[in-house]
Amino acid sequence: MNKLTVAHAHPFDHAIALQPMAPTAQATAPGSSREWLGHTSPAYANMVGPFGGVTAAQALNAVMHHPDRLGEPVSFTANFAAALADGEFRAHATPVRTNRSTQHWRVDLLQTDSQGVESVVLTATAVTAARRKTWSAVDAVMPRVPRPHDIERAASPRPVPWLQRYDMRPCAGELPQTWDGAEADSLSQLWMRDDPPRPLDFCGLLALADVFYPRVWRRRALLTPVGTVSMTVYFHSGADELAATGEGYLLGQARAQSFFNGFFDQSAELWNEAGHLLATTHQIVYFKE
Amino acid sequence: MNKLTVAHAHPFDHAIALQPMAPTAQATAPGSSREWLGHTSPAYANMVGPFGGVTAAQALNAVMHHPDRLGEPVSFTANFAAALADGEFRAHATPVRTNRSTQHWRVDLLQTDSQGVESVVLTATAVTAARRKTWSAVDAVMPRVPRPHDIERAASPRPVPWLQRYDMRPCAGELPQTWDGAEADSLSQLWMRDDPPRPLDFCGLLALADVFYPRVWRRRALLTPVGTVSMTVYFHSGADELAATGEGYLLGQARAQSFFNGFFDQSAELWNEAGHLLATTHQIVYFKE
Repeated sequence: MNKLTVAHAHPFDHAIALQPMAPTAQATAPGSSREWLGHTSPAYANMVGPFGGVTAAQALNAVMHHPDRLGEPVSFTANFAAALADGEFRAHATPVRTNRSTQHWRVDLLQTDSQGVESVVLTATAVTAARRKTWSAVDAVMPRVPRPHDIERAASPRPVPWLQRYDMRPCAGELPQTWDGAEADSLSQLWMRDDPPRPLDFCGLLALADVFYPRVWRRRALLTPVGTVSMTVYFHSGADELAATGEGYLLGQARAQSFFNGFFDQSAELWNEAGHLLATTHQIVYFKE
Repeated sequence: MNKLTVAHAHPFDHAIALQPMAPTAQATAPGSSREWLGHTSPAYANMVGPFGGVTAAQALNAVMHHPDRLGEPVSFTANFAAALADGEFRAHATPVRTNRSTQHWRVDLLQTDSQGVESVVLTATAVTAARRKTWSAVDAVMPRVPRPHDIERAASPRPVPWLQRYDMRPCAGELPQTWDGAEADSLSQLWMRDDPPRPLDFCGLLALADVFYPRVWRRRALLTPVGTVSMTVYFHSGADELAATGEGYLLGQARAQSFFNGFFDQSAELWNEAGHLLATTHQIVYFKE
């Protein structure tokens, strides 16, 4: 994507844009690592550093842009090794193994600190595949909830830029109104889409998989410090299903299964309005006390 | 583990044993990669290549043996890039980022083919952490099933070595008796432990997370070719909880959410007999047709 395009682009496209760094002669061999320059985006800033969903999408975007990519994403795992500092980062994407119909990727995001020391801020692995049409079935049950246009958009309770970039319409399990330590279940259901609306693609879907607020906040009604350490998305859709979803809302459902000594898990499903289960996602999140 | 110990060890310990390769001077710097030699194990052979759960455990074992390891495993993701050939492999484990209480790992398994070409057969990432005691809660509901000693051990229907290494006592969702294409749900519940019994540790738990037979076989009653491409385990337990579990049975429950164009997911939980949710696990699996 060139600069002219980016200038008129959706904030998300602007945020995940990567500028290729000139490959060395060696690096142009098939299956070699490619390097891009990226930048954190003020439009997707969190309280400290960027919204993790966009950081993960930036890593996936390096795979999407690699000239040797085979097929579409099936699986993506990002490990958040450190909070990104606002500013530039480098993305390395390497197809470590290319089979007949699947391909395995390693991706790293790196930043250089003020002392000139470079370190890894995110590690990721991905599997892409040339999918074929097969027998298919969805066993997960889509929750029965009101249509998105019959639900009021949630007012953002916190002055955090990235929350403005998503239109969220909660059906159940909203953020607690009072932080009184009253225990509840950990389930949330909401309709969500980009704001402004944006045609769905793999990077956009990956970021949406990280939109749910931390389960421990709901479970305990306590605003304890948290941070996702690892997140996995399984794509149960191809480019055709994402194109058919377009700018429509996705129904997201998230819940935790265990909170244990500083870490809890989150499992979530993302359906489109037509009832296709586009992705399932899992993460493990640090929490304090 | 030296050779004498291995000779008298449990087959699983023998299978995951790694022999350190002499680190170079540079590689002994803190945070550097270490290399081990491992070997596939006939005792855990699958129909083609080894049982994936043991291959993943071999990768985790490289992290467990690294002298710079901080804390215990919280998250582990393995991507099965290629079927391992029977024989030697090399394991590289690198702590790519060490924070105050968490550490991020990259692990690769590599094999050299008969032409002398080395390639990646498995990529993995792990997060280890020095956990602190915090508020904890289990939200997943342990299924109510008969005790393991009240259920007969399943006879292995297939002459596959690794299946003999697990004592499995199915409560629900057994392997179909006839491959007649009759669709069913994808749920299985079973008690399981190593055979011979073995005190539980992180590597043993990781392997047990891959014991479930492919969901598509149950869902369709069709013996279609399958292969796990990526698997993630979240550990909701520390060494103390694993030691308390000892040689006891684990209750495993697995189900699929989506089967779509060649890939299905599997989500599973593993409890000990006392009702502690030790781990949750997710994988995405290739299936043909």
